[in-house]
Amino acid sequence: MTAPSPASIGSSSMPGPGERVAVLGAGVIGAGWAAFFALSGLDVRVYDIGVSAESSVMSTIERARPVMAALGLLSDRPTIPVVTSDLEHTVATAVHIQETIPENLEMKRRLYAEVESFAPSTSVIASSSSALKPSLLQAGMAHPGRFLVAHPCNPPYLMPVVEIVGGELTQPWAIESARRFYEALGKQTVVLRREVVGHLVNRLQAALWREAVHLVVEGVASVAEVDLAVTAGLGARWTVCGPHEIFHLSGGPQGMAAFLERLGPSVETWWDDLGHPRLDPATRQVLIDGMRESAAGRTVDEMALARDRKVVDVMAFLKRGIDQPGTR
Amino acid sequence: MTAPSPASIGSSSMPGPGERVAVLGAGVIGAGWAAFFALSGLDVRVYDIGVSAESSVMSTIERARPVMAALGLLSDRPTIPVVTSDLEHTVATAVHIQETIPENLEMKRRLYAEVESFAPSTSVIASSSSALKPSLLQAGMAHPGRFLVAHPCNPPYLMPVVEIVGGELTQPWAIESARRFYEALGKQTVVLRREVVGHLVNRLQAALWREAVHLVVEGVASVAEVDLAVTAGLGARWTVCGPHEIFHLSGGPQGMAAFLERLGPSVETWWDDLGHPRLDPATRQVLIDGMRESAAGRTVDEMALARDRKVVDVMAFLKRGIDQPGTR
Repeated sequence: MTAPSPASIGSSSMPGPGERVAVLGAGVIGAGWAAFFALSGLDVRVYDIGVSAESSVMSTIERARPVMAALGLLSDRPTIPVVTSDLEHTVATAVHIQETIPENLEMKRRLYAEVESFAPSTSVIASSSSALKPSLLQAGMAHPGRFLVAHPCNPPYLMPVVEIVGGELTQPWAIESARRFYEALGKQTVVLRREVVGHLVNRLQAALWREAVHLVVEGVASVAEVDLAVTAGLGARWTVCGPHEIFHLSGGPQGMAAFLERLGPSVETWWDDLGHPRLDPATRQVLIDGMRESAAGRTVDEMALARDRKVVDVMAFLKRGIDQPGTR
Repeated sequence: MTAPSPASIGSSSMPGPGERVAVLGAGVIGAGWAAFFALSGLDVRVYDIGVSAESSVMSTIERARPVMAALGLLSDRPTIPVVTSDLEHTVATAVHIQETIPENLEMKRRLYAEVESFAPSTSVIASSSSALKPSLLQAGMAHPGRFLVAHPCNPPYLMPVVEIVGGELTQPWAIESARRFYEALGKQTVVLRREVVGHLVNRLQAALWREAVHLVVEGVASVAEVDLAVTAGLGARWTVCGPHEIFHLSGGPQGMAAFLERLGPSVETWWDDLGHPRLDPATRQVLIDGMRESAAGRTVDEMALARDRKVVDVMAFLKRGIDQPGTR
């Protein structure tokens, strides 16, 4: 196993014009990463054997351009990714390799073996996997120390958070290099200390949705009403404070300690009453019917377009606030 | 039981200048409602026997004024609430009575009995309770049909959602009257179809926090990191889409049905792996220590002030977007 010197870590973790990045796979996430890297000014090569890979990447770039402009992340010198079915050409000189192929362990392991035969041993290989643990993915690699999971929220050119998770064999320099790489591109990283299915974001989202499903299935409220409770009741605060800080601030001067003392028992009562629905056929039908009613004739495309515009607006607004904390 | 005629329902549910509203209790929630109603231009009387009630209401009004101005909710003719320890004077001519005293069943029942001896039988009595079910609260009332729970998020002058819950004896006209009352003041209401502890908002919040606690206690990430996963990964989207709609939109053209087909099994795997922490002393200490580290020397007051400013900004931004859906 070859660990690079501190000097080479420093240089490889600071992406700049001309720095080469490889993206493996041009699906939704791969095309999203490729667009993000190219519009950040990096030299991007995308490996995909599908015939529509190039058009998918190009159309994603057009969608991503106004988004990154709104977020202040569009480079003065954006690039155009090279999309190719030549893996060696894609990874041979890449400092960072972002893998985004389907969630199939054997397929990913075979790809890594090929990648390692072409890529420098000092390049970081980051899988975008949300389902597979890095220890499983890196087992059998020639240089597993440089492998990790770096999971974006979708789309990668819009959502700021990247969850970084090392496996048993991942070396600290790789984690640090990945962290600095994403942060230099404007991302906010979270380095997990342990591998867990779903990382943080998907687990938290699943926890909220489980109760949302329960409330609908039990007939307490409709799909639209439960969604409204989140958008009008919880969302705005969660852009500013996480769940721990919210309760810390509701505890008065003594914060979390006072909150736990005063309201801990109530919270446990609520926890005990939360639901444990399963996604059986009857439940699925309730959700499908409830969502149809909530959509009120709007197609998924219409709703997604409206959603994307609004989320971009909110993200751009939040980013201005974060960048200029003293302006009000 | 006296049900008002449709005409009187119509007039009593449209608050306007000179309309009298009573607030019972001048704690944090009571003072917040009083400020909201007064700055909306209603004639407000507040009942509280504490010596600091009036100063509490007045200082809350000063905090609420710029918030409601930012949200476009400040009346041209705001009023000053009358704070009094005379219950009869408070409720005798009120069309809407908002109760906010501590979460003690017997105390609330005694208060309702007194209120009913003074108030018109057509005035709606709305409890702000988050812990007690309306069927329990209304048992024993002379006119239980006009009683319901109307739970705001805190502070009531900022957060738009009001959860309305009727008990077994609540009459439809009272629900409808309350709904129209709050909506005429700019609130977004959700009428629950069944009584459940914590209503919607607190249950959903508790579900998310349970997993947030689990991830910290299990050493997957720090308090600050879990909070970041929410603020940078989930919050912005949740201001625009609720949890059901998010998955509907991730399913492609077939929406929820396709999402459930493709990702339902993964979600169930995550559900099965979610934690079930308890708030025992060791867990409390982990949360207190983690929050202290996350606060990094900032006091609760400092953090709360920064939070409030940012949340107001986000809410005002979202409100502009909602009011002008075609502007971009």
